[in-house]
Amino acid sequence: MSKKKGDRTERELFHMFWEEGIACSRVAGSGSTPRPSPDLIAVTNNQSLAIECKSGKGRRYLKEKEVDELKYFGRVSGANLMVATRFDNEDWFFLKPEELGKGKGKNFYVDLNHAKKHGITFKELIKKFKQKKL
Amino acid sequence: MSKKKGDRTERELFHMFWEEGIACSRVAGSGSTPRPSPDLIAVTNNQSLAIECKSGKGRRYLKEKEVDELKYFGRVSGANLMVATRFDNEDWFFLKPEELGKGKGKNFYVDLNHAKKHGITFKELIKKFKQKKL
Repeated sequence: MSKKKGDRTERELFHMFWEEGIACSRVAGSGSTPRPSPDLIAVTNNQSLAIECKSGKGRRYLKEKEVDELKYFGRVSGANLMVATRFDNEDWFFLKPEELGKGKGKNFYVDLNHAKKHGITFKELIKKFKQKKL
Repeated sequence: MSKKKGDRTERELFHMFWEEGIACSRVAGSGSTPRPSPDLIAVTNNQSLAIECKSGKGRRYLKEKEVDELKYFGRVSGANLMVATRFDNEDWFFLKPEELGKGKGKNFYVDLNHAKKHGITFKELIKKFKQKKL
């Protein structure tokens, strides 16, 4: 998937948070800093949520390092963590890092079936986030 | 002041937070989104802090709109808010939006004298932030 398309889906989610009355920021320099940086940070009511976005057509992989960095960000910040997936022509689904699929190697994956089975919808995410139950 | 130099001081502060064990992210798209976006977001222990950076040689101005947007971000997110100032060859000082100088017009300002008088140091900021007393 092109970076441009990834940026577009990331911005889509960014606006979805604001429309729910939740502040959201896109993080700069993902990949250009030695510090872990998620794609988005949403903040509301003394709760924060760090999000890694994965979108595209088919199964997407996450390197072990990518997942470790998200978890590290969570440990230091105390933020909730979610991998946000958006497959073409489908709704968003949100999975905790430990809910990602695990293949034979060290990488993690997520595909539409896995996301539907293990993830939650945006509506569920917002409800849980506002109730501090993520 | 050049954008490049502004980015450098912003990155300096970014790393200072991480070195204190506080997660920090640089926000993308400041100016390119209709939603308010601070320069940095620091997160620790169910507390978040949205920061607008101002650095350079002499007095720096903030437009009323800039301050309003920071306050709006604070209302939606519940985050603490600070304007971080770093004048050449001086330490960082942090002021709440309501502690900024107010000139004759609608703009706000901060200079070294004002920052030293009304602001707090990085050490004080970290202490208060960790104690949830910002």
